[in-house]
Order: sequence, then structure tokens, then C-alpha cells
Amino acid sequence: MEKALKLYQETNQKLKAFYLVMFLHGWDSSTEAPHDAMEYRSKQLGVLSEMYYRISTDPAYEQAIETLYQNKDQLDSVLSHEVVERRKEIVKTKKIPVEEYVKYQELMTQAYQVYVDAKRSSNYELYKPYLLKVIDFKKKYLQWVKTSDMKGYNIFLDEFESGFSIAEYDLFFNTLKERLVPFAKAVSKLKSNYNKSFTKKSFSVDKQRIFANYLRDVFCFDPNRTVVKESEHPFTTNNGTSDVRITTHYHADNLQSAIFSAIHEMGHGLYELQVSKELDDTMSGSGASMAMHESQSRMMENMIGRSDVFWQRHYPKLLELFP
Amino acid sequence: MEKALKLYQETNQKLKAFYLVMFLHGWDSSTEAPHDAMEYRSKQLGVLSEMYYRISTDPAYEQAIETLYQNKDQLDSVLSHEVVERRKEIVKTKKIPVEEYVKYQELMTQAYQVYVDAKRSSNYELYKPYLLKVIDFKKKYLQWVKTSDMKGYNIFLDEFESGFSIAEYDLFFNTLKERLVPFAKAVSKLKSNYNKSFTKKSFSVDKQRIFANYLRDVFCFDPNRTVVKESEHPFTTNNGTSDVRITTHYHADNLQSAIFSAIHEMGHGLYELQVSKELDDTMSGSGASMAMHESQSRMMENMIGRSDVFWQRHYPKLLELFP
Repeated sequence: MEKALKLYQETNQKLKAFYLVMFLHGWDSSTEAPHDAMEYRSKQLGVLSEMYYRISTDPAYEQAIETLYQNKDQLDSVLSHEVVERRKEIVKTKKIPVEEYVKYQELMTQAYQVYVDAKRSSNYELYKPYLLKVIDFKKKYLQWVKTSDMKGYNIFLDEFESGFSIAEYDLFFNTLKERLVPFAKAVSKLKSNYNKSFTKKSFSVDKQRIFANYLRDVFCFDPNRTVVKESEHPFTTNNGTSDVRITTHYHADNLQSAIFSAIHEMGHGLYELQVSKELDDTMSGSGASMAMHESQSRMMENMIGRSDVFWQRHYPKLLELFP
Repeated sequence: MEKALKLYQETNQKLKAFYLVMFLHGWDSSTEAPHDAMEYRSKQLGVLSEMYYRISTDPAYEQAIETLYQNKDQLDSVLSHEVVERRKEIVKTKKIPVEEYVKYQELMTQAYQVYVDAKRSSNYELYKPYLLKVIDFKKKYLQWVKTSDMKGYNIFLDEFESGFSIAEYDLFFNTLKERLVPFAKAVSKLKSNYNKSFTKKSFSVDKQRIFANYLRDVFCFDPNRTVVKESEHPFTTNNGTSDVRITTHYHADNLQSAIFSAIHEMGHGLYELQVSKELDDTMSGSGASMAMHESQSRMMENMIGRSDVFWQRHYPKLLELFP
């Protein structure tokens, strides 16, 4: 088992090294790469993704995982959890034909720039052929990885949040429909106590940036370990616990959008910043799941960012910038 | 030979894919990565550099290069030139012990951030231990790669400009010393016709940025294929011919510095932008050599950027910003 553990960890170091590539490429392509860069780059990423595929599906690696899995009672809790996850993943990845895997990576590299072009020119037709190819791949993917226990959309749901399927979500959303919808309708009929007319103005993007920087201090979003930048659609990304990055999108006609989006993304980011540094060397770092991540961002955005007490403290600063 | 050519080209695609990693990392680390990011990242780059080393020194690749080299009269001019260069490189790389190669990559990743810290705090002691390790590696490198024909500093000179050694440079610099130094001394004794007092003021960095953007238009530095940003020390980098990037460093007390540095770096960049797109798929793209590159940047900076006629056209724009 010692040999299996060594091979397992060495292979993981290689896989994690490739995460750096995807991290840097994703950040760069969304925030500043020049328009024409992606055609050439997509070939390079295709080659790298093939290397990644071959390392992550190497039979010796699979065998090592299997050995560890059989002995998982002897592993510490982090490792035994990891081995279960890795085993699940390798079984799936192996079912994707390598040439389809590579083609999909190349497609995704090129599609992002087209999405931005299409969004900016409000021209869906531009993006449509790319989207169709993405959907086509996803449909084939479902055929490749389906098992007797798991089929169709449940496969994606399980990838978002392990163990949750259509059955659980139907129960959840039906409860919401029954109880929350009537409540929300009743509330929205009440007369608002707030005067929202001030939100219908034009707001200097430069000043919005200053306020976003102010919020960065408020939320202790450590500048030595973070970057805050702009992109077409806001997102959070990270490379370990010492490099966490968020983006914002400023709208001159909407002051709230960037404020709450920045708090939301900082919520994701703060979660990553607080992951134990010890996990940086394992495959268990980063957020636990989509739901955990979204709970952190929503807590910051809604429970803190939209609270009265928060704005009692910070509204004066906003007024300074937008008198 | 067909088999050798196929293996040669497939391996090159892999090596070129790794260039993307170094391009993205170099750009990111010099222009915006957070301060604490490099420790974790240096391990990932270490792992990737080992993969790169093993691919670039693979015996099958070496054999393919040897086969092509023996038949280089049958290759087209691009390929036959390439094969000579690759052969020279693989012989050298193989002589570097892989663990030293990896350690050096990790060192360089960490050293850059320390260099910036040291420069900003004028604290050489901070950087000294890193610099000593770099020098130590370089000394060992000279021992590893020396041949009966090429030793010591000539090895580095040959890497900067193939075929030039201490003998050629001594001849060159002695000629300069004899002829140019007396001329320069004589000129510097003459009374200047120009009033330079206006350069001793404080210049808004925001306005300097506006002028740099203006210059970008003047030099047709195509925004769809380029990025202009800031870093501690200006440089140019590129990934193929469709992604060329330069940086500038603005000094509030020195207007000329950023202007001529931007023109200089655009000179490097324009050279890369004008490399034939067909070479993007070969190992022969990018500038021909250090001297060719520097000749392009200096031509733009000195012959164009410092000419009377250039400023007759563009001085009014500068005056608009700095009345």
C-alpha cells in the first residue's frame, strides 16, 4: 500500500500542476487576453488537456486508487474521503474518448470569446453554433458515463452536489412552491418603506471602483492573497489558499449590481481563503461543494450585505462618493 | 524519415503547449499576481518544468532530431534551420541534472517577487540570497554544458546571439571605444539647443497612461492582438503572433521614461506581430535573435521616437495633456 500511496501522491502533484494552467488561462481569458488570442491558444490547451487526460486515467494511477480504496479504513479521514472521490471521477473520465475530451477543451477555449462578442453585440446567432456543440457534447457525455444507478440529468445534479438527484430537488422545490411563493407574493403587495428613486441615476464607474475597494477592506479581503478585477460576468477563482481572485462587472446605470455582486464573490473568496493551508498539498482543498460555496456567498451578500446594520455603518461612505 | 518527422512535430506541439504556461505565468506574476501566491505556485511550476524537461530530452525525440539532421538537405529551409537549433539545445539540456533544472525553475518563480520587494524597499540584502543561488546555478551550468570548443562566458554570449563570442565583442567594443567615445565626449561638451527644464516637474500617471494609449494608436499596436499593462520593469512577451503584450513603468517625476520605454517595447512587440503566422505552428516563430529584437526596439525608440519629425507631429498632443 505504501507504493500505491506514493504513486497516488506523485500523480496528484502532476494533476494539480495542470490546475495552475487552467487557473491562469481562465483568469487571463476572462479579464484581459486580446480578442484574437484564443485560436492559437486553444491548440496549446488541447495538447495540455490530452496530457492531463492521460495522466488522470493512467492504469497505474487507477490501480493505486483501487488499492487505497480497498484499504481505506487504514487511511486518515482526508485521504479516505479523497480516494472515494477520485475513484468516482476516474471511472467517468475513462469513459470519455480522449479525442472528444480534447475537442471539448478546444471548443470551450474558443467559445468564451464568442460569448463575449455575442453578449456585447446582443447577437445570439453568433454564439448559437458554439452552444449547440456544447449541448451536443453534454448529451454524448451523459450516454458515455451513465450507469444502471445514474442516468440523464441526475448525472449533472450529482456533479454539482454529490448525492442530490431530481427526487430530492423536486421535494425541495415543491416545498418552496407551496410555502415560499404565497409568502413572497404577499410581501411584494405591501407598500415598500424604502424610497428607491436614488437608484435610477447614472453612477461613475470610477467611483464604483473606489467603493468596491472600500468594501474589500471592510470584508478583510487580504490584498496579499487576492486580486479584484473586472470581467463580462463576475466570478471567483483560486489557486490554493494564497491566490484567490474575484471579478466584478460595473454598470453605469445600476449602482447595486456591482456592490452586491462584489460582496457575493468575496463570500466565495473568503471561503477559499479560510480553507486550511495544509490541504493545499492534497486533492481535498478548495470548497467542499457547490451548495457550500453558494451558501457562503449568499450569506455574505444577503444576510450581511443586505442588512440594515451593515448600511448604517457603510452608507455614509457611499454618500461621500455619490452625494 | 517520415516517422521521425511525425514524432518530431508531435513532440514540438507538446513543448509549445508548455510555452503557454510560461507565458501566462510570467505575465501574471509580473503584472498582478498577489504577493503571497508564488510559494504554492512554484511547486506547480516545478512539476510542470520536470514534465517539460523529460519531453524535451526524450531519447525518441533526440533520435528523431538526429535522423532529420542527417537528412537535413532534404528538408525545407525552415525545418533544416530548426533541426540544427533543436539539436544544439537538446545536447545542452540533457547535461543539466533534472533535479537541478527543476530546483532552478522553482527558485526563479520565487525570486521575482523578492526582487520586487527588495527594489521597492531599496533593500538589496533581501534579494541577495536568491541572487547568489542564481549565480551558483549559472556557474554549475557552465561546467555542465562546456565543450572543447565553447567554455565559460562564451556559452552565455552564444545563447544571446548565436556565433558571437568574446573575441567578436572585444573587437566591436574596442572599435566603439576608439571612435565613438571621443565623439560622444565632444558632443556632450557642446551647449544644448534644447531647454529641458520642462522635464523636471511632476506628471500625473493617469495622464501618462492616456498618452501611452495615444502612442499605441500611433504605432498601430493592434488592440485585438495586444495588451498594454504595467510592471516593475518594462518587458515584452508573446504567445504566437496573435497575443503580444508589453508593459510600462510610470514615474511621476519623469515623463520621458515611460514614453520612450513604451515605444521601445512596442518596437519589440511590432516585430513579433509581423512574424509570419505560418511559423506559429513551427519551432521557428518569434524573433530571430536578441540582436535582431533589440535592433527593432531601438529603431522605434531612437530613430523614430527621438526624431524631430515625430515630435513635430505628436508634441501638440503631449501639450494638451501637460500644458
